[in-house]
Amino acid sequence: MAAAAASSVSSTARAAVARTGASARPWAASAAAPAAGISTRTEKDTMGELEVPTDRYWGAQTQRSLINFPIGGPESRMPAQIWRSFGIAKKCAAQVNMRMGRLDESIGSKIVAAADEVIAGKLDDHFPLVIFQTGSGTQTNMNVNEVIANRAIEMLGGELGSKTPVHPNDHVNMGMSSNDSYPTAMHIAAALEITGTTIPGLKALHAALDAKAKEFADIVKIGRTHTQDATPLTLGQEFSGYAKQVENGIRRVEATLPALLELAMGGTAVGTGLNSVEGYDVDFAAQVAEETGLAFVTAPNKFEALAAHDGIIEASGALNVVACSLNKIANDIRFLGSGPRCGLGELILPENEPGSSIMPGKVNPTQCEAITMVCAQVVGNHAAITFGGAQGHFELNVFKPVMVANLLHSARLIGDSCVAFTDNCVTGIRPDTDRIGKLLHESLMLVTALNPHIGYDKAAAAAKKAHKEGTTLKEAALSLGYLSSEDFDAWVRPELMIGPTKRE
Amino acid sequence: MAAAAASSVSSTARAAVARTGASARPWAASAAAPAAGISTRTEKDTMGELEVPTDRYWGAQTQRSLINFPIGGPESRMPAQIWRSFGIAKKCAAQVNMRMGRLDESIGSKIVAAADEVIAGKLDDHFPLVIFQTGSGTQTNMNVNEVIANRAIEMLGGELGSKTPVHPNDHVNMGMSSNDSYPTAMHIAAALEITGTTIPGLKALHAALDAKAKEFADIVKIGRTHTQDATPLTLGQEFSGYAKQVENGIRRVEATLPALLELAMGGTAVGTGLNSVEGYDVDFAAQVAEETGLAFVTAPNKFEALAAHDGIIEASGALNVVACSLNKIANDIRFLGSGPRCGLGELILPENEPGSSIMPGKVNPTQCEAITMVCAQVVGNHAAITFGGAQGHFELNVFKPVMVANLLHSARLIGDSCVAFTDNCVTGIRPDTDRIGKLLHESLMLVTALNPHIGYDKAAAAAKKAHKEGTTLKEAALSLGYLSSEDFDAWVRPELMIGPTKRE
Amino acid sequence: MAAAAASSVSSTARAAVARTGASARPWAASAAAPAAGISTRTEKDTMGELEVPTDRYWGAQTQRSLINFPIGGPESRMPAQIWRSFGIAKKCAAQVNMRMGRLDESIGSKIVAAADEVIAGKLDDHFPLVIFQTGSGTQTNMNVNEVIANRAIEMLGGELGSKTPVHPNDHVNMGMSSNDSYPTAMHIAAALEITGTTIPGLKALHAALDAKAKEFADIVKIGRTHTQDATPLTLGQEFSGYAKQVENGIRRVEATLPALLELAMGGTAVGTGLNSVEGYDVDFAAQVAEETGLAFVTAPNKFEALAAHDGIIEASGALNVVACSLNKIANDIRFLGSGPRCGLGELILPENEPGSSIMPGKVNPTQCEAITMVCAQVVGNHAAITFGGAQGHFELNVFKPVMVANLLHSARLIGDSCVAFTDNCVTGIRPDTDRIGKLLHESLMLVTALNPHIGYDKAAAAAKKAHKEGTTLKEAALSLGYLSSEDFDAWVRPELMIGPTKRE
Amino acid sequence: MAAAAASSVSSTARAAVARTGASARPWAASAAAPAAGISTRTEKDTMGELEVPTDRYWGAQTQRSLINFPIGGPESRMPAQIWRSFGIAKKCAAQVNMRMGRLDESIGSKIVAAADEVIAGKLDDHFPLVIFQTGSGTQTNMNVNEVIANRAIEMLGGELGSKTPVHPNDHVNMGMSSNDSYPTAMHIAAALEITGTTIPGLKALHAALDAKAKEFADIVKIGRTHTQDATPLTLGQEFSGYAKQVENGIRRVEATLPALLELAMGGTAVGTGLNSVEGYDVDFAAQVAEETGLAFVTAPNKFEALAAHDGIIEASGALNVVACSLNKIANDIRFLGSGPRCGLGELILPENEPGSSIMPGKVNPTQCEAITMVCAQVVGNHAAITFGGAQGHFELNVFKPVMVANLLHSARLIGDSCVAFTDNCVTGIRPDTDRIGKLLHESLMLVTALNPHIGYDKAAAAAKKAHKEGTTLKEAALSLGYLSSEDFDAWVRPELMIGPTKRE
Repeated sequence: MAAAAASSVSSTARAAVARTGASARPWAASAAAPAAGISTRTEKDTMGELEVPTDRYWGAQTQRSLINFPIGGPESRMPAQIWRSFGIAKKCAAQVNMRMGRLDESIGSKIVAAADEVIAGKLDDHFPLVIFQTGSGTQTNMNVNEVIANRAIEMLGGELGSKTPVHPNDHVNMGMSSNDSYPTAMHIAAALEITGTTIPGLKALHAALDAKAKEFADIVKIGRTHTQDATPLTLGQEFSGYAKQVENGIRRVEATLPALLELAMGGTAVGTGLNSVEGYDVDFAAQVAEETGLAFVTAPNKFEALAAHDGIIEASGALNVVACSLNKIANDIRFLGSGPRCGLGELILPENEPGSSIMPGKVNPTQCEAITMVCAQVVGNHAAITFGGAQGHFELNVFKPVMVANLLHSARLIGDSCVAFTDNCVTGIRPDTDRIGKLLHESLMLVTALNPHIGYDKAAAAAKKAHKEGTTLKEAALSLGYLSSEDFDAWVRPELMIGPTKRE
Repeated sequence: MAAAAASSVSSTARAAVARTGASARPWAASAAAPAAGISTRTEKDTMGELEVPTDRYWGAQTQRSLINFPIGGPESRMPAQIWRSFGIAKKCAAQVNMRMGRLDESIGSKIVAAADEVIAGKLDDHFPLVIFQTGSGTQTNMNVNEVIANRAIEMLGGELGSKTPVHPNDHVNMGMSSNDSYPTAMHIAAALEITGTTIPGLKALHAALDAKAKEFADIVKIGRTHTQDATPLTLGQEFSGYAKQVENGIRRVEATLPALLELAMGGTAVGTGLNSVEGYDVDFAAQVAEETGLAFVTAPNKFEALAAHDGIIEASGALNVVACSLNKIANDIRFLGSGPRCGLGELILPENEPGSSIMPGKVNPTQCEAITMVCAQVVGNHAAITFGGAQGHFELNVFKPVMVANLLHSARLIGDSCVAFTDNCVTGIRPDTDRIGKLLHESLMLVTALNPHIGYDKAAAAAKKAHKEGTTLKEAALSLGYLSSEDFDAWVRPELMIGPTKRE
Repeated sequence: MAAAAASSVSSTARAAVARTGASARPWAASAAAPAAGISTRTEKDTMGELEVPTDRYWGAQTQRSLINFPIGGPESRMPAQIWRSFGIAKKCAAQVNMRMGRLDESIGSKIVAAADEVIAGKLDDHFPLVIFQTGSGTQTNMNVNEVIANRAIEMLGGELGSKTPVHPNDHVNMGMSSNDSYPTAMHIAAALEITGTTIPGLKALHAALDAKAKEFADIVKIGRTHTQDATPLTLGQEFSGYAKQVENGIRRVEATLPALLELAMGGTAVGTGLNSVEGYDVDFAAQVAEETGLAFVTAPNKFEALAAHDGIIEASGALNVVACSLNKIANDIRFLGSGPRCGLGELILPENEPGSSIMPGKVNPTQCEAITMVCAQVVGNHAAITFGGAQGHFELNVFKPVMVANLLHSARLIGDSCVAFTDNCVTGIRPDTDRIGKLLHESLMLVTALNPHIGYDKAAAAAKKAHKEGTTLKEAALSLGYLSSEDFDAWVRPELMIGPTKRE
Repeated sequence: MAAAAASSVSSTARAAVARTGASARPWAASAAAPAAGISTRTEKDTMGELEVPTDRYWGAQTQRSLINFPIGGPESRMPAQIWRSFGIAKKCAAQVNMRMGRLDESIGSKIVAAADEVIAGKLDDHFPLVIFQTGSGTQTNMNVNEVIANRAIEMLGGELGSKTPVHPNDHVNMGMSSNDSYPTAMHIAAALEITGTTIPGLKALHAALDAKAKEFADIVKIGRTHTQDATPLTLGQEFSGYAKQVENGIRRVEATLPALLELAMGGTAVGTGLNSVEGYDVDFAAQVAEETGLAFVTAPNKFEALAAHDGIIEASGALNVVACSLNKIANDIRFLGSGPRCGLGELILPENEPGSSIMPGKVNPTQCEAITMVCAQVVGNHAAITFGGAQGHFELNVFKPVMVANLLHSARLIGDSCVAFTDNCVTGIRPDTDRIGKLLHESLMLVTALNPHIGYDKAAAAAKKAHKEGTTLKEAALSLGYLSSEDFDAWVRPELMIGPTKRE
């Protein structure tokens, strides 16, 4: 009986944990199979009719995708940046189309109004699709078309699902293909995330590291190579290396923007621009540039822009370098801050959360841990992007959603974690000058300063004695009678060992 | 004025898209900075007091983590499987502690009851933390402790935040450390996801491929090597290779379970088990085994279990092989189904969504695209796991959350996408036997069957003529007068070319 | 007995194959343990004396490394580019040191002469060390110092191993540390390989693809998206996309040069420049620039230049994008050239080696296979570089040799394979215009051209009929009586479907 | 004039370094374009005649491959293990064919004899091809066929290149295809390398770590989590975790053997076994098993065995886990051995080469550096294998050479570096017991032992005082008057803190 009960319990537990799917897609809960009692309306596409929840703007194609691709949990939802960037694309397309006389103002203006709501995030609950769908992102394009059409219909007093007076294909998608509009949204989203999150985060970190480099300019400390004691440098010099890495990182990330600022729109289905109008591509890019304040241009070769996403791989490659830089910096900081008694202990890191209640001074370097985990993720995302980016076929790469989702993930994580790391760690770092001084003066590496004065052999003998007997270098040198205490203090001056010899 | 307006629009658009953070963390919306007007209560930890939303069970340490780690969007939330598996761990710990007489039944029974709610997903809204936090997952352990304690307090009529009569540390976390309990939750979650999602998905796919291999056993078709025409095989043989890959994949994934079924619990802070009681580790694992129906055991070496997560890397490695298999299979299927007129066209894939309304027969292989995108993601996740898994230090690996999140992601994606691919693609695949036959008989590779009858030189001459003139092999051979039509039909029988020569 | 014999055979076979080590390090054969009978001389370092083969210039530290690091086969030898670049560094250092009056001309001039021999590859047999040694590359630096010193001693009539009159440390390594000179050699080697091999290879490929794009400008063919038939484009447009990818790749690779052109020399042990002389770093870089014709400069921050190799990761990231591009292009080409009968068959690839002797027309796309294998390797090398680049500690990254070896490997492979792919495949590609025309005209995608003339519904009906009955679109439309043969030919003109509508 | 000279110098230098190709392929030097004066003979294949160096056994197809694939330096040569394993395959095939009566004994016995020379490495100079060739490895198969045929012809007194009386295709390749024989050689080579190098290396390391775990069983030391001081453990416990990781690694690598022990031979061109004889596959595998002493069997599904190399990816995945383990262990050891004065300094590592001549005690952890570089390489190789393994098409994966080369590379590096790391580092590690004791007793983490005696609050107060004033815990507790010196010594006993509480 107990066994039976246990078994019954266990299968419940197992089911609950492992099948997190249902509740893990709360945004889709009412959708994939609208439960009895949920109010629905009928939407249709060329394959037939489907029931859609009454309180959602999406249509049949979105609903169909929900049914066909029940893949992944909340982490697998199409990123919000994508549909919001689609909002920008649809808005700008409508504006250009109205200006070209292809789209009636009464309809176009409502498309613009509905798109503005998408851009502002007001309709986020109406984009339930996942990343792992059609590889061209077609269904998300249709999701956007359906939502904007229905919302515009609503604004115009029409009936949801009627496709009148605003048709998702004829009006919202006018002259576009998923094949050119999805990569357009990819680039808009990537450029906005990188300029809006990644670079500001890196700049904040750079400023903080640079400030520390200046603040610590006069603190001479032991250097470490091969993780072993080496000749001294200043703590400011050490931090200047970190600052330089981040400065270079900003340059590297910015250098990827030109490729991302090229928009595929106007290439339509295969890159030729069939069904588009000459000049539309240029006008559209200019409109997006105006809308976003970023210097978007039309892609010079639309075949490349649809069939490959090398610009996405390039951007991810820059973030991959940044991840390596950040991993190095955060690793150093946690080791330099290790202790409180049995580590290197040169830095005192801010305490942001309880470490051990009874163990004062045990400050876990949690911000270092968070950002190094971000580095691991960014390196992994880069591998995913590379894998997908290498495998386009003919006129279309069909790894679009997974590529852009990973790039946006990395761009966001780098930016956010730099801010957290800066605010909650770097700016609060203090040197433990006593400890730094103690280590420096215990070090045997200072022996090199004695060479010119007592000769290489005696200097080596003093160091060997100190090492063997566990004394300081000074004690050893004095006991060997090689010099006086005043000599030692005059000659062994670490602050003179932190740069090249002056040229005469 | 227009420019000003545009600029104002643009900065709004940009801000809205790029700063998806706020609305992208809806589960945390009321938390990080409880807005004016939101009802709060005061919680405290050793660092002081914090305001927490009244309607949430979490306490001060959770709130503090929300403030310190504003990193990432919805994709970066700690996976639900983790806190639910923590629920199992806390429940089993309470049961063992009660049995050992260390925990009062009145308290322990409510911990069990609250943990059951966590397991069942009823308290999902109370776990707002992100993956990119303390690398030991300490804050999620505390989140669980706080939620269970407050919920148990509530059941007992106490005051939320009072830590009385149920204390998050003393009672819920009794004798545990984050350092042993987080890896315990990692392994429980991974084993449940793999056995509950991944393997069933793979088995469904294997069954479908195997059924197709049998269904297609008699359909002889052209083989292709180097993507070029080669000697024939049956479509069933081709699918048998796919089935074998998936069968091996199941074996590979199952082989990773023993390491995942080892639980770190009882190692406490550094693996020694300090503050735990002898035998607790064994009893706990047995309790989890009973709860879940999986054969969990205590880890034979707790130092390894805390400081390294090689078992997670191993499991990810198996999923990485599976991803390669699935990528190969899905690629083949989309190429074999390419067309309708200008591709290989041997397979007819199910049509799940509108392709082109005017272009009948254009069925995009969307399920192939979704699953190959999953493959890209799994390969990327594997790189992230490898990066983190290689970088533990001393007694603790602090890439725990990022490692397990990526593994759970991969395990879920493989399982889910196999089901979708099976249901929406594989089971509906039909051979285009006309096309298959046509290609087979147009092929020049069949010439090898003529060797024994007309000799190598004449056979080659016939093939060369056919290739040059674009005729069939039969036409060429007949026109050269090498054989009769009956001879050709008798000798060139592809169905005899699909196996080795029988031994006499 | 048979079993025993078998066992004896087997252990021989097994040993022979698996222990390829000895013979796989022929360049080191006489070294690790100079066999009895091999003539040796005694060399010494601070740890003592070692026997070195008489006919080799290396000294004790090199010999010691051979003994301590018996790791890997021929693929694991330090790349020749490294020691040759070290030759450049040692030569330029000597020149600057002579000019500064720190190095006697009689010695310095022989160092220059010996270094010239290293640069020219004349002393390649004297660099036996492997990649997997000290992570700073110290032992390869010493290998170079020892070889140049002994060769210079020989030129001056001295005794090998005497360190007189040319001392490997005092004269050849004068004022340098391994920590600044190894990264200097890394950057010189990388910049030379990229400018000398990678970029010329990419440019050759770009020129060939661009020429094909122009040559094929008027060949209209079916497009393919989702691997399915789509609207037409020209073969020239398709190739223009490939050319654009490679053009972008050249830009991407060139953009990594500025970081590689920064030299660490002058930073000495920890980046401070201790033991160097002010201005030496700038003079040295100028000398290397003169020597190589590349615009080398001194690294603006030496701490970054020793402790991190982000510039190497950046360069590898660019090659990673290029690998993705090449994989896509080569994949397309092999599929477009697949056949001869049962594939897509639009392209005729050059036949470089025997395919099947009896199967004319079976041309395996071997160049595509070679270059896609290169892509796999480059992606892998990038992962190795990323792993090492993320893990520097404090003042020194100690993954130097593995990082640069992988970068040089990738740079060489990309350059070489582009040349082979260009010469042996791309330039010889011919379109099968009959096949291209046949597929194009069989395609149902052309139906879209009928819309404006007979309306959407009739057009769709014609396409459906053609698809169902396996006829051409024209046949179906005619049999439905929708239009005349002349109408069809006038309206369905694929050559008008390859661009956007002209603006009025 | 100076500029001109410089320019002339520079172009020489540049050409010499960057164009390492010619001299970097010394094994092919006389081959790709036999220089004037080199003695040659004429060989021919179906495409025509080619000149081959007289002193080489290879034939026209090998020569043609040399010309067509001038890709990469020495690191890109086909691994020796492959052609030697091919030797085993050709020998066993001849033996089975003779036994089946298909191959004349007079010819077969010489094929066996020549193959034995290949196996033994005596003909290594006759295999000049590179990895980046035809993706099925066809040209290396032909290289082996040509060399064995010519060597057998020579033994029989025939004329090289005459293909009489031993024909490379008809006799040496009898009934085989490159498509089944290359993967057969892949698996033989991989299984031999793993069992002959990788596993013995891991076992040596495991034994050494396990011995250290026992040797250090009684040395109590401070634990470290989050790189911060934590509760104590023994040094033996710490090493037991390392030993466990390696033990698990051995198990993981061994678990990949079953898939590698499956041989594709008998599948011929597409997996059907056309042109092979029923039962040949089974007999062949048995023969290889006898030859090698490893339990090879015929692959149960030949379609899978040709079209996918999941077994190679699986094996690489196991090595990837091992790389992560080794990286962790080596990282720990270098940090624990850091110093001599300013690091953690708990371990004294063996000194294998001169560190700093003047700086006694600066022992660079070079073995740790070499093995962590190996880890980086193995992780990279795994990515290359994954990339290639995912991209097979239809009946053949054409990334065979690059996949197996990377696996062999990893297998060799792991095995070799484990031996070097064991012999030159692990076995010589000594604890610095003074330092270990000093750190342990300075640590504040011991305060937890006071709780039961003086209460939590007083314990915390003592720790806080000690932390603030930089004293020991004992000094602080005594000065606060909480206990006597004897009390402290009796209560604070780290050796009692290294395990769970005994159960009563």
